[in-house]
Amino acid sequence: MSSAASRDRRRIVERLGAASRVLLVLHVRPDGDSIGSTLAMAAALRALGKATEVVAPDPIPPNLAFVPGAGAVVDAGATRGSFDTALFLDCASLDRIGGATADLERAGPILNVDHHSSNQRYGEINYVEPQAAACGEVTYDLIRALGVALDVEMAVGLYVAIVTDTGSFRYQSVTARTHRIAAQLLGLGVRPAEVAERIWDNRSLASLRLEAAALRTLEREGELAWMDVTPQMLAESGAAAYETEGLVNLPRSLEGVEVAVLFSDEGRGEVRVSLRSTARVDVSTVAVSLGGGGHARAAGCTLGMSLAAAHAAVLTAVRAAMR
Amino acid sequence: MSSAASRDRRRIVERLGAASRVLLVLHVRPDGDSIGSTLAMAAALRALGKATEVVAPDPIPPNLAFVPGAGAVVDAGATRGSFDTALFLDCASLDRIGGATADLERAGPILNVDHHSSNQRYGEINYVEPQAAACGEVTYDLIRALGVALDVEMAVGLYVAIVTDTGSFRYQSVTARTHRIAAQLLGLGVRPAEVAERIWDNRSLASLRLEAAALRTLEREGELAWMDVTPQMLAESGAAAYETEGLVNLPRSLEGVEVAVLFSDEGRGEVRVSLRSTARVDVSTVAVSLGGGGHARAAGCTLGMSLAAAHAAVLTAVRAAMR
Repeated sequence: MSSAASRDRRRIVERLGAASRVLLVLHVRPDGDSIGSTLAMAAALRALGKATEVVAPDPIPPNLAFVPGAGAVVDAGATRGSFDTALFLDCASLDRIGGATADLERAGPILNVDHHSSNQRYGEINYVEPQAAACGEVTYDLIRALGVALDVEMAVGLYVAIVTDTGSFRYQSVTARTHRIAAQLLGLGVRPAEVAERIWDNRSLASLRLEAAALRTLEREGELAWMDVTPQMLAESGAAAYETEGLVNLPRSLEGVEVAVLFSDEGRGEVRVSLRSTARVDVSTVAVSLGGGGHARAAGCTLGMSLAAAHAAVLTAVRAAMR
Repeated sequence: MSSAASRDRRRIVERLGAASRVLLVLHVRPDGDSIGSTLAMAAALRALGKATEVVAPDPIPPNLAFVPGAGAVVDAGATRGSFDTALFLDCASLDRIGGATADLERAGPILNVDHHSSNQRYGEINYVEPQAAACGEVTYDLIRALGVALDVEMAVGLYVAIVTDTGSFRYQSVTARTHRIAAQLLGLGVRPAEVAERIWDNRSLASLRLEAAALRTLEREGELAWMDVTPQMLAESGAAAYETEGLVNLPRSLEGVEVAVLFSDEGRGEVRVSLRSTARVDVSTVAVSLGGGGHARAAGCTLGMSLAAAHAAVLTAVRAAMR
């Protein structure tokens, strides 16, 4: 850890120590890292005697509703009273909190804890560890620095954060330290098979029908592969929009493919684009150039255009980045 | 570790210390645990000055050919000279070595190192650790007990063994110790993203076409789901038989499914059956009753009958086990 990050963490610990009512804010389309890190931290703050509330700009996906504390998360705009502190975990920029801006008006200064290198440092204090494989790792450090003894419920949250944001310990970001933290969490009682079953073995027949339909659109051009989801596929399969998550891993799984793209047209006049890269290409620059964001190997954007226009815009930008 | 296992390991260490020419034998249809454990152990024995040869009754799958030492593995019947010791890793019974029985005739007594609870204890010494998530964990212990300093090539083999046999750290068998070993291996230079890319992001367009075709046969009956691969699907997709590996994870991924079955008819007058279970049902008993074997949650058998007859035989046995 750099000395700057070390100082930032110390400042965050001091501020949280002095806080009494903390608002924690999930990001839009909350994922396992956002939910797991935030709920573990909320539990740690309660263990220190703080009042906490967790607000979500979008619903918790059904496969993550098992994370301890998820039942107490409130919708954007539904928090009560005021807060002396706002705490963001895993949120790279302020435009990722959707309708929770209304709740933020009744909260004190923002503390920003993250691992995205693209983090906009929008907080009064910003503790960003771009080397961490998940915000869950940063949160683990922070909870320990707060002097809180981890319990099994916090451990499940942190494990969910890490296992989801590393593709089950497979991404380049994973280090020996990631596994040492996982060993600690399993020692506290996390059951990896039960967590994995809830997160990944939770598919509907409709999502498998959607996968079969989407596979028929798979195209490959050298080291680039892409696949579509159309409103017709969603309607015919009966799959929900959130069930497109993970489909980008199919073109990504092709041998020799460097960049994979999923174009998801959910029939709302916009196309959600998911980008994945293996090593050579930084897809976050492509996503940022199209108004999105993310990491070098996993990024995305949403384009207000037709599927054909999104193909043209994204594939042109990706081809340029690959040259 | 039990005191019996501790004694067995000590005896194996003594015998390997006294050996000078060791034949290591992979099992039929060798998987990541068989290949990774065996090649790491062969390298460790060479570091101790032993001559080694590794024999494989079936070809190394292309996605595992990167494991250090895989290039020197020889086909069954192609070993030269004689050996004072035969070492089996991850091999539950002697009928799992196919044509390598010929090579075994020129070898000394068998040392049997494994983690399958169904292990038949066919060796002169049997060191079986059913608690280990992979034979790679047992092999890690054995290499350290031999006093060999692990290098990055051995570490890659052990990591491949563990990451493949635990479904990337997701199975029930994974413990804090599994992650502590993984942390050691990453510390030695294993790059998880590169390993994962070679093992899993190595698919052919044909295998994705096969997946789409097989998904159309998916059937569900309560907590039981199954899927077929037919000779026609293999021909039309152009996929190779080994590319059916992993397809059983699709029915297994359905919410609420306890037992998943893949029936793979490769057009050779027999059906390969893969069984997966989440928790309640021990599918190894089903597999054993049909002449196969495996673990409680992952087992299989090969039936010399038609696809329809295999459906009837297996689904009847599974339904009985589920009651």
